[in-house]
Amino acid sequence: MQAAAETVDGVFRALSDPTRRHVLERLSRSPASVSELAAPFDMALPSFVAHLRVLEGSGLVRSKKTGRVRTYQLVPRRLKLAEDWLGRQRALWERRLDQLDDYLLALKETEK
Amino acid sequence: MQAAAETVDGVFRALSDPTRRHVLERLSRSPASVSELAAPFDMALPSFVAHLRVLEGSGLVRSKKTGRVRTYQLVPRRLKLAEDWLGRQRALWERRLDQLDDYLLALKETEK
Repeated sequence: MQAAAETVDGVFRALSDPTRRHVLERLSRSPASVSELAAPFDMALPSFVAHLRVLEGSGLVRSKKTGRVRTYQLVPRRLKLAEDWLGRQRALWERRLDQLDDYLLALKETEK
Repeated sequence: MQAAAETVDGVFRALSDPTRRHVLERLSRSPASVSELAAPFDMALPSFVAHLRVLEGSGLVRSKKTGRVRTYQLVPRRLKLAEDWLGRQRALWERRLDQLDDYLLALKETEK
């Protein structure tokens, strides 16, 4: 099934910021709370929380509140949408290189 | 070598629009002129050309003018930056699943 274009748009847009990519890298290792995620960044909390909202809006992460602590975790299948799109481009591109190879070989044959 | 964060930002930002992704899909098959690229889209030419500029700015495509015709082609190594980042996240994620497997197996052993 092909993902809706808007979903893929949102995933790539979420990935286009270094703070958000760092958060995803951190969550690739384990779930983490807002304060754990924010700790490495010299950024006002509201700005940081805005990044978390973009990530959650894209479906790349989800969060759960337990008492006063909100914990985030990665949603790997959403990351896979972006990987799949890139993989398809690579397949097209590599087929083109193969065709070029065939063409060059054929050219070489006719020159013999 | 790790690519500069701004370069990766630009690649993901360029990928976050369906028109730009369609152009890249088209260029994965062969180079094409502006008018060939614009043909499938019901879009004013200046808007379409703005998308081509974003793509060229990200380094995902490059163009060459011959007479009055500007031809675009894909720069696959730039697409690879995005693939590599996603691949690293997958590796981290999969290692985590392996560790979880080990943990569950160990747990099962102690319960025997």
